[in-house]
Amino acid sequence: MREKTTIKKSAPEQKKQSATTVKQKASENEKQKVPRGLYQKPIRRQGGLIGSRELTMGSETESTLTIPKQEKGSVRVLFFGGVGEIGKNMYAIELEDDILIMDCGLKFSEEDTPGVDFLVPNVQYLEERKEKIRGIVISHAHLDHIGGISVLMEKLGNPPIFSRRLSIELIKNRQGEFESKEPIVYHEVEKNTVLKLTENLTLTFFAVTHTIPDSMGIIIDTPAGIITFTGDLKLTHIDGVVSKEEESEFSVFKKKKVLLTMADSTNADRPGFSLPESRVIETIGKIIRQTKGCIILSSFSSQIERTIQVIEHAIADGRKVIVQGRSMITNLTIASGMGLLKMPMSSIIPIEKMGDYPREKILVLATGAQGDNFTALDRMSREAHRHMKLGRDDTVVFSSSVIPGNEEPVQNLKDRLSRLGVNLITYQTSDVHSSGHANRDELKWIHEHINAKFFLPIHGYHYMLSAHAQILHDIGMAEENTVLPDNGSIIDISPDGKTITKQEYTMPTKLTVVDGNAVGTVQNIVLSDRKILKEDGIFVVIVLINQRNKRVKKSPDIISRGFIYLKESQQIVNRARFVAKKSAEQNMQRGKSINIENLKRSINREIQNFLYSETKKRPIVMSVVYVQ
Amino acid sequence: MREKTTIKKSAPEQKKQSATTVKQKASENEKQKVPRGLYQKPIRRQGGLIGSRELTMGSETESTLTIPKQEKGSVRVLFFGGVGEIGKNMYAIELEDDILIMDCGLKFSEEDTPGVDFLVPNVQYLEERKEKIRGIVISHAHLDHIGGISVLMEKLGNPPIFSRRLSIELIKNRQGEFESKEPIVYHEVEKNTVLKLTENLTLTFFAVTHTIPDSMGIIIDTPAGIITFTGDLKLTHIDGVVSKEEESEFSVFKKKKVLLTMADSTNADRPGFSLPESRVIETIGKIIRQTKGCIILSSFSSQIERTIQVIEHAIADGRKVIVQGRSMITNLTIASGMGLLKMPMSSIIPIEKMGDYPREKILVLATGAQGDNFTALDRMSREAHRHMKLGRDDTVVFSSSVIPGNEEPVQNLKDRLSRLGVNLITYQTSDVHSSGHANRDELKWIHEHINAKFFLPIHGYHYMLSAHAQILHDIGMAEENTVLPDNGSIIDISPDGKTITKQEYTMPTKLTVVDGNAVGTVQNIVLSDRKILKEDGIFVVIVLINQRNKRVKKSPDIISRGFIYLKESQQIVNRARFVAKKSAEQNMQRGKSINIENLKRSINREIQNFLYSETKKRPIVMSVVYVQ
Repeated sequence: MREKTTIKKSAPEQKKQSATTVKQKASENEKQKVPRGLYQKPIRRQGGLIGSRELTMGSETESTLTIPKQEKGSVRVLFFGGVGEIGKNMYAIELEDDILIMDCGLKFSEEDTPGVDFLVPNVQYLEERKEKIRGIVISHAHLDHIGGISVLMEKLGNPPIFSRRLSIELIKNRQGEFESKEPIVYHEVEKNTVLKLTENLTLTFFAVTHTIPDSMGIIIDTPAGIITFTGDLKLTHIDGVVSKEEESEFSVFKKKKVLLTMADSTNADRPGFSLPESRVIETIGKIIRQTKGCIILSSFSSQIERTIQVIEHAIADGRKVIVQGRSMITNLTIASGMGLLKMPMSSIIPIEKMGDYPREKILVLATGAQGDNFTALDRMSREAHRHMKLGRDDTVVFSSSVIPGNEEPVQNLKDRLSRLGVNLITYQTSDVHSSGHANRDELKWIHEHINAKFFLPIHGYHYMLSAHAQILHDIGMAEENTVLPDNGSIIDISPDGKTITKQEYTMPTKLTVVDGNAVGTVQNIVLSDRKILKEDGIFVVIVLINQRNKRVKKSPDIISRGFIYLKESQQIVNRARFVAKKSAEQNMQRGKSINIENLKRSINREIQNFLYSETKKRPIVMSVVYVQ
Repeated sequence: MREKTTIKKSAPEQKKQSATTVKQKASENEKQKVPRGLYQKPIRRQGGLIGSRELTMGSETESTLTIPKQEKGSVRVLFFGGVGEIGKNMYAIELEDDILIMDCGLKFSEEDTPGVDFLVPNVQYLEERKEKIRGIVISHAHLDHIGGISVLMEKLGNPPIFSRRLSIELIKNRQGEFESKEPIVYHEVEKNTVLKLTENLTLTFFAVTHTIPDSMGIIIDTPAGIITFTGDLKLTHIDGVVSKEEESEFSVFKKKKVLLTMADSTNADRPGFSLPESRVIETIGKIIRQTKGCIILSSFSSQIERTIQVIEHAIADGRKVIVQGRSMITNLTIASGMGLLKMPMSSIIPIEKMGDYPREKILVLATGAQGDNFTALDRMSREAHRHMKLGRDDTVVFSSSVIPGNEEPVQNLKDRLSRLGVNLITYQTSDVHSSGHANRDELKWIHEHINAKFFLPIHGYHYMLSAHAQILHDIGMAEENTVLPDNGSIIDISPDGKTITKQEYTMPTKLTVVDGNAVGTVQNIVLSDRKILKEDGIFVVIVLINQRNKRVKKSPDIISRGFIYLKESQQIVNRARFVAKKSAEQNMQRGKSINIENLKRSINREIQNFLYSETKKRPIVMSVVYVQ
């Protein structure tokens, strides 16, 4: 991410813009606006549906209407999120009169955005052109492709959503957790649907292999040519021999002359073919058959495809299946309602019934493989699960990779399970997980089949995009026919279809965050404060001054949190009081009248220096002065 | 880690022990003790050598002298750190009259200890028995085996340190960065040294393969039997055929009857043999020969073995070598001073001279592959390096794995480099890195050669220890002859050498941290405050009260950091003032006299509720009340 803010341990007093002490008469009868609902990440905090505040954009935001219009007849491609990062995928095609959005995802908070619930794409450019938006096409129902809908839908003017059946069901389900003013209009499409949105915009679709059913690629027919958007995909194959089903889906391109492809770059730097999902299922099947005790299989709830197949294997082995974890139950219920689950529902039993069956006849599907607190797996590992005690005969299969940032909680979870004596199987020791994204040779196959003139890599860090572009050069595409986009990029294909150009000007890229119930562009000051607070805490000095004799009344008060343990550091606290008092009185002696801002700065500076020399820590230092 | 504290978003007012407002007359002429020096992690903060504070242990600490003594003639094994975690390895053997310490490492701070510089083992048990300590044997010079020395040496009564030459040089060098009162006594040992420490304690050594030269295993001869401590190790092998050199080193066990082995468990759950280092060197050699432009190879500075071989390959290819990064320069200088670097020093040139040679004749060795700020690689990626501009013809090799927790900065670093057009090679796409720890089949080989009666797995998370014990069971060791230790464990081998028992009682395990210049057991309240501050910030209300009419004077003052952007939330601030005022006045109306603590609690509670309902965030709320 280019916007990365490094932690500068600057003297906190320099941050005057931070509005630290706000003093103003209360307007007691003001009404609070609670404009609209917002889903709250359920793990981190408790509470139901909530209202939301809107962060104002601040003075830094300028209208995007100053951005030059594209040339008549050209195609403009817009990147709102998903490039230079993993997460919050959102792209659009702009023609003279129409805008078509592809995907609308979220990204979970990282190191740089402490305390933030999640991030969504910055859509200011679209907000200012919402009358042109003809719809949002969703490639598949993973959160990094649908998670922004609930937050951004109104800003976009509630355009209709187009997707396949399961995706729509999952979006609807997620939408149900939000208060939404305007109902969303959904249109179900299928592989053979031909969707004429406007005179210049006709869509068709093709099925792709990913880790969730109903994943699809999009073929957008425009006057300038055909644009292909693959969504997330890998190939079904055995030892590098691609399946007949893939051949058949991709045969749609045989007769098409494609102008531009946009495709998933996640694993573009990995050599060869990815581990096929069939191998994962085979391995899990073997584990199910060979394990004597109870099996707990933990995976992402979004891995619906695999979950269904694991259930089939368990039932074939004569096991009863128990499902634990709200999101997994929801997803399976929806899949089952659509007929995707082809086994008798009596094979799935509630956990309360597990005592009715021998342990070796049970398989539990559970979320929690990322080490999150309060999941069923977490509770089992802490011996705090009401129905389930794990022991030496049981096997826990982590059928998932570890999401970067979760290594520590996952290792701790594995450790707790290991202490209970359970047998652990992970993707590091066994083929029980495979990524949903194509490796280099799969991408090569895909591009040889689509055979486009231009290529824009999407979905991945810049080095992944770069590796993806290299694949295209390797199979003969001219270098100038590929461009590496950034979030905010505006890339135009000329009306004659001969050149592709990244414009110098960009759309706004300020991070848009969901923080508590606020949605808006992020205020770096708040985040950088949180980073300092996390490392070194805060130290507040309150000084009462006798106006007549310019002396400090009593000894100053100290408030501190997250800095050092004050009870054990009385000496430092006492000396800090003295430093504050002395600094204040010396400052007042210098001038005739008392300049409170100047006085505060002087106290802050000397307290900072004192605390650093004593503790080698740099808490945020603030002083409050009362002249009485 | 069992001590894991989960973030409880409890009402901050419940934390009465947190000593939030400390009020006491300043003792202005008190002298600060600056007892002794402490090295400061250089990346995070600036500043040279510093004095240190000592955190007092608090009332929770009890003497370990109440722990029952071991039976006469038995061997006691003590675990201070390194089990149930990766990091801060420290173990000891206790006999009736003697204690021998093996390794003394540090662990870098993780999620659970925000703001802390690093952690060291809790050595209270040893402090209270320091007269029995005969020495510290260091297996090799990685920080997780030597990093605790500087901080703990005095507590241990400055025992002599025994190790091989390079390890001693590296410890001395690190020690030079600290102010130390007492000089440390070092004793150099070699593979054929026989070290009779006391009547009952004789040590010999064997060389092991790891990623740093002079790594060794320790053979401890006691009246109860022979104890083997492997240190960190893997095997030199080609396709699973172990080298003659390893056979020769391990032949020392042929004639020995070993009572107990303690061995490295890091990769015990990985199948087969690890990628041999020779393969890594071969791959890097090929990259060096085939690359047209300048090569930047980034690795851990502690990978001295590999660094030396890379330099040899570069020189063989006619390249000049430039070394960047303080720790890498230091380590190479020390290795070179010991004759480990066998090439002409004229091949290593200062970076200022790089303009004198064609770019394709240069290889730069640099630290920074973990994405840390302010390293040479970081500066190059930001186009801020004074001498080095990277471009399309250059290749950056990440010859290292990503340490868990560093994924995000590493991906951002790779992204920045990719934007410059450089060719990136990582361990994920090529064999340019291998772990220094043995996989399952190597461990099997090692244990078959040592052939001990008892086994205690060390160096790893509990699930790694458990996987390691399983290997021993697989090759025929009785289950009761292996025990899985925890930090703090006390494990005794009976005087007759027939049984091994983990005692019910344990040593203290409270985390010992280095935080700024303070060294001590950690105060959870400070750390949990930091975690809340990081997510939701702090909100302080200052209320002045007119004692006579029990009314709030003026409108209360608000101080807040890291919560929400106050400048954009005037309405919330104003309403919070009103809530505080109302809460205070209602509270005072209830009683006759003003109870300040009660008043503060009431204000805190109502402000918390108000802020949560408005923002869905739970900052730390504190109030300060002045009755005037």
